[in-house]
Amino acid sequence: MATHITTSKRLRSTPFTSRVEACGVKDYTVYNHMLLPTVFRSLEEDYQHLCEHVQVWDVSCERQVEIAGPDAQKLVQKMTPRDLSKAKTGMCFYVPLCDETGGMINDPIAIKHNDDLWWLSIADTDVILWAKGLAAGLGLNVQISEPDVWPLGIQGPKAEELTARIFGSDVHDIRFFRYKMLSFKGTDMLVARSGWSKQGGFEIYVNDAALGRDLWDELFRVGEDLNVGPGCPNQIERMESGLLSFGSDMGFETTPFEVGLDQYVSLDADIDSLSINALRTRYSKKKLVGIVVNQPIDFLDNFIYQDESVIGEITSLVWSPRYQSQLAFALCDLSAISSQTHVHVLSSEGLKQARVAKLPFDFEALGLKG
Amino acid sequence: MATHITTSKRLRSTPFTSRVEACGVKDYTVYNHMLLPTVFRSLEEDYQHLCEHVQVWDVSCERQVEIAGPDAQKLVQKMTPRDLSKAKTGMCFYVPLCDETGGMINDPIAIKHNDDLWWLSIADTDVILWAKGLAAGLGLNVQISEPDVWPLGIQGPKAEELTARIFGSDVHDIRFFRYKMLSFKGTDMLVARSGWSKQGGFEIYVNDAALGRDLWDELFRVGEDLNVGPGCPNQIERMESGLLSFGSDMGFETTPFEVGLDQYVSLDADIDSLSINALRTRYSKKKLVGIVVNQPIDFLDNFIYQDESVIGEITSLVWSPRYQSQLAFALCDLSAISSQTHVHVLSSEGLKQARVAKLPFDFEALGLKG
Repeated sequence: MATHITTSKRLRSTPFTSRVEACGVKDYTVYNHMLLPTVFRSLEEDYQHLCEHVQVWDVSCERQVEIAGPDAQKLVQKMTPRDLSKAKTGMCFYVPLCDETGGMINDPIAIKHNDDLWWLSIADTDVILWAKGLAAGLGLNVQISEPDVWPLGIQGPKAEELTARIFGSDVHDIRFFRYKMLSFKGTDMLVARSGWSKQGGFEIYVNDAALGRDLWDELFRVGEDLNVGPGCPNQIERMESGLLSFGSDMGFETTPFEVGLDQYVSLDADIDSLSINALRTRYSKKKLVGIVVNQPIDFLDNFIYQDESVIGEITSLVWSPRYQSQLAFALCDLSAISSQTHVHVLSSEGLKQARVAKLPFDFEALGLKG
Repeated sequence: MATHITTSKRLRSTPFTSRVEACGVKDYTVYNHMLLPTVFRSLEEDYQHLCEHVQVWDVSCERQVEIAGPDAQKLVQKMTPRDLSKAKTGMCFYVPLCDETGGMINDPIAIKHNDDLWWLSIADTDVILWAKGLAAGLGLNVQISEPDVWPLGIQGPKAEELTARIFGSDVHDIRFFRYKMLSFKGTDMLVARSGWSKQGGFEIYVNDAALGRDLWDELFRVGEDLNVGPGCPNQIERMESGLLSFGSDMGFETTPFEVGLDQYVSLDADIDSLSINALRTRYSKKKLVGIVVNQPIDFLDNFIYQDESVIGEITSLVWSPRYQSQLAFALCDLSAISSQTHVHVLSSEGLKQARVAKLPFDFEALGLKG
């Protein structure tokens, strides 16, 4: 398959693109109309390095939807079925955004600056348009914009050490999904303990392009002995960790319940949320499950079969070198999958048996040693 | 610059991707979360062929936002400052969509099926989210969805002949920006005289994936003597023709007036449009102009200079083999550009003089012979 991409102003580069190119990026994807690196060395080498050392990620494509004004908190609560009434400055929240039918719009991290100022750090849909539509339709007193902010990820087991070398010992006091405003060369930046891996780390919400490039360079300078390297969200690591990708593993048609995000829906809270009533009564039709095949196979299609009937579709797929298995996420018909421990997938040698697993994968329970 | 793209379910393929690959597509871009071919032979060979013969384009990424229900016409009018009160079944309208400040959201073709059913055939932003937000906020009685429809373009001087060979002589009666429902193998498809080139042609709104592949194959079979070939929107042709690209040449910050779309804003009409009041009073700050340099140059940056001051930014750029000129679109400060006939651009040899032109380019007035 042809895989060259034609660049244009519409597919935005980032403040770090020159650095990413100098580091030898091999592949990109496009995310929120912006370039997102996907491979530097190889998927597997990037994975090994991420799990052992520390990487700097250009995740500028996690655009911020800024909601400011007296009705900011009201609008953010409208958009999500997760109760945010106890949210405080300094907190981040993983929030499904859902429409009035309970279908998902996006799954951002909501960042509370104060009652009158929130950021939504978004996945790959134009949440700004939904926010603007709702605000205009409801007559809310808010200003909605996309500020010049480009998140930079610092991920991996040595991320805390590296981040503290730049931002000081306050970094150690930042709890998971909390942030502090910390200074780099005299400019305060939002530093959150978060990121799209399970290796630990931080996201720096860079608010000055030139300073951001200085930060990139400084991270590589002071992190040399930590074996710091360039990186990006890694398909092996994120699937082993059970992290979902909006647009692949969930979309407008799925509810949070269907993809296992039950804990982020506050069914019993008294909140003014557009989707909460629908979510209280809508039946789940699908279920996102893990699929494991203990050998490399060539998939002929993306379907999940029960005997010869199609009961679902693979949404993400990767070969895990650690567990020597094909790992897949698959969205299946709830009624067909709920009692199954095994299903089939189609390879060139015909239907192959595959195990059904809960997400995130429990590799020990699956008898797989890393 | 690295230009490989990593595919995933999130970057959707189309019903025609297998055909496009078989035809040897060289490059893609991503548009509405979907693959859009950009080059088959070379940009220049594709251009020559498009201007002489007929091409089949996979423009599935022109997604349809379907607005259905008793308030459909009301919502569509809310979204655009163009008066649609006289719209009739069978008509298409190029419509700027604008928010309450007059900033643009998208520039789709609006297709009227009937008072209760419209399609917006969109450029590269998630218009569905804005429509859903507005509808929910305003409490409108509409259903909003993205139907399984994948437009196929037939473009070039021989497009009418080829389209008529498939859909019959009714094709000749379709006027510009009008459509008819015509049958292919017993299934009615919407056939419109439109497309993102000035070479003439049609867009078929394919509503059945398998039948669409049959249509692709049939177009190549019956069009062999017309020298039919694969194609795609062509940067040379579209810039010579003055066609704008949302996200590059205009965006959320620009008004229709700033990019020359005055004729699509019904300032004096009595319409219930979200943006019309803002557009009546908002001052233009920018102006999109054409830029011409009569020799190939290597641009060092994307800026437009007046002497040594930056007064604008290049939004699209191409080398025109026909006119032996660099053609650019540039968004410039209105006050700085309005009296200028010449500006400067930066090449490795320093500042170079460039001519300022109205859009679309009047090559004869510019003394350029094709």
